Amino acid sequence: MKIGVFDSGVGGLTVLRELVKLVPQADYLYFGDTARLPYGSKSVETIQKYAVSATKYLEQQGAEMLVIACNTATALALDAIKASTKLAVAGVIEPGAEAAAAATKKKNVLVIGTEATIGSHAYRTALEKRGVRAAEKACPLFVPLIEEGWAEHDITQRVAHVYLDEFFQDPDRSPDLMVLGCTHYPLIKPMLRAVAPWRVEIVDSAEATAAVVAKQLSSPGHSQLATRSSQLRFFATDSVEKFRRLGERFMGRAIANVEHVDIEA
Amino acid sequence: MKIGVFDSGVGGLTVLRELVKLVPQADYLYFGDTARLPYGSKSVETIQKYAVSATKYLEQQGAEMLVIACNTATALALDAIKASTKLAVAGVIEPGAEAAAAATKKKNVLVIGTEATIGSHAYRTALEKRGVRAAEKACPLFVPLIEEGWAEHDITQRVAHVYLDEFFQDPDRSPDLMVLGCTHYPLIKPMLRAVAPWRVEIVDSAEATAAVVAKQLSSPGHSQLATRSSQLRFFATDSVEKFRRLGERFMGRAIANVEHVDIEA
Repeated sequence: MKIGVFDSGVGGLTVLRELVKLVPQADYLYFGDTARLPYGSKSVETIQKYAVSATKYLEQQGAEMLVIACNTATALALDAIKASTKLAVAGVIEPGAEAAAAATKKKNVLVIGTEATIGSHAYRTALEKRGVRAAEKACPLFVPLIEEGWAEHDITQRVAHVYLDEFFQDPDRSPDLMVLGCTHYPLIKPMLRAVAPWRVEIVDSAEATAAVVAKQLSSPGHSQLATRSSQLRFFATDSVEKFRRLGERFMGRAIANVEHVDIEA
Repeated sequence: MKIGVFDSGVGGLTVLRELVKLVPQADYLYFGDTARLPYGSKSVETIQKYAVSATKYLEQQGAEMLVIACNTATALALDAIKASTKLAVAGVIEPGAEAAAAATKKKNVLVIGTEATIGSHAYRTALEKRGVRAAEKACPLFVPLIEEGWAEHDITQRVAHVYLDEFFQDPDRSPDLMVLGCTHYPLIKPMLRAVAPWRVEIVDSAEATAAVVAKQLSSPGHSQLATRSSQLRFFATDSVEKFRRLGERFMGRAIANVEHVDIEA
């Protein structure tokens, strides 16, 4: 089984990291559309066009299933991607919403993400379907702060307070769970845990998505080889060197085999 | 005279704002490549390809002269753009370096900009040719902070201290002038003035570039009509609405006539 994993950049590597742990029987093709990132601040039409061309490329390279490891692309382009392919396509939002709905006791959660993801209200819609009330907050500075290597900087913590404090001021009305609706955010999870009140649970859609894919693939017809280690190939539309350097922080291990792709050609 | 002004996004509007003041006898076509921004964190090859396709578009629309109102595109793609057109092409770096060299007494300046602009050492090269020593510092968080609308937020000032304080610690060796090597930075000029020691002069390459274009066009053969107001047309590759909303802060006035362009088509 060869799984194509798609993101606008390196953030989706936090999903790939979880997939490799939970689904070692698969091999992976990872596509980072780094020449056209970030998707988070762009319009629906632009994101759909980019996402469809990228996932088509993964299919041409032999992917047999697609994981859209990008919240913005899932929020705005999942239907367009599904319409453009016969492969099974998994996004990150349904798994994240499902995990959040299962874990919240107050049925009241906060979702954080990029401007485009939050503007789409995809999480709110998915959560309301499950009887959960969702506040949503765009946090556009988190991605550049994380990419600057400031995941543990006290300035990043202050930015988090500016974005989030208002949601936790009234204990009666405050959410008991926060959804990390952007694949960059697992890198600031320890800091976010310190910024939110200690009772607030954090759901990471990267983990939730990998768990859903694992469940699908461990159904009869797919073999489990726990000792196997997955083969990984990486494609990036911008600098291979930068992808490798930045990506290792997200993947949590060395990255080899990054190939440059000129997707407009 | 119709001048094509090109930037990756809205930052170049700070250059257009100065051009309209100093060269009112021209009309302007402004192209913001917002679907593919930011250029500042991308590779040379990618930036060249994007910049050439964008300036070709401006030429097709009737531009008779090109102003590359983007430091990153000037640093990395000015030669490629010049090779692709017969029009006169002005960048922002030579004017900025010239103005800085004329104003520094210590012949010792600091240049700040995006990762790609600073990595190219284009300013340092241009300044050393003029006998000026240049320290360079990439400040990748300034653009997202400005686009978040935090130009006056104290967090932005703290980020500036993190980036810049080391350069001003030793009064004997510290620069007496700072070049704003990114067209977004005029929006944080008052804050930067407070962060740098008061003796440090600030050179804004947007102003310097407009002055150079004004000088070129006021040569015999071009008429000066001081009471005329320029006609402006704007093109954006991503959301027209977002361009208008964000752009008004950079342009310092209302923006109309934004047209969407699909440049890959």
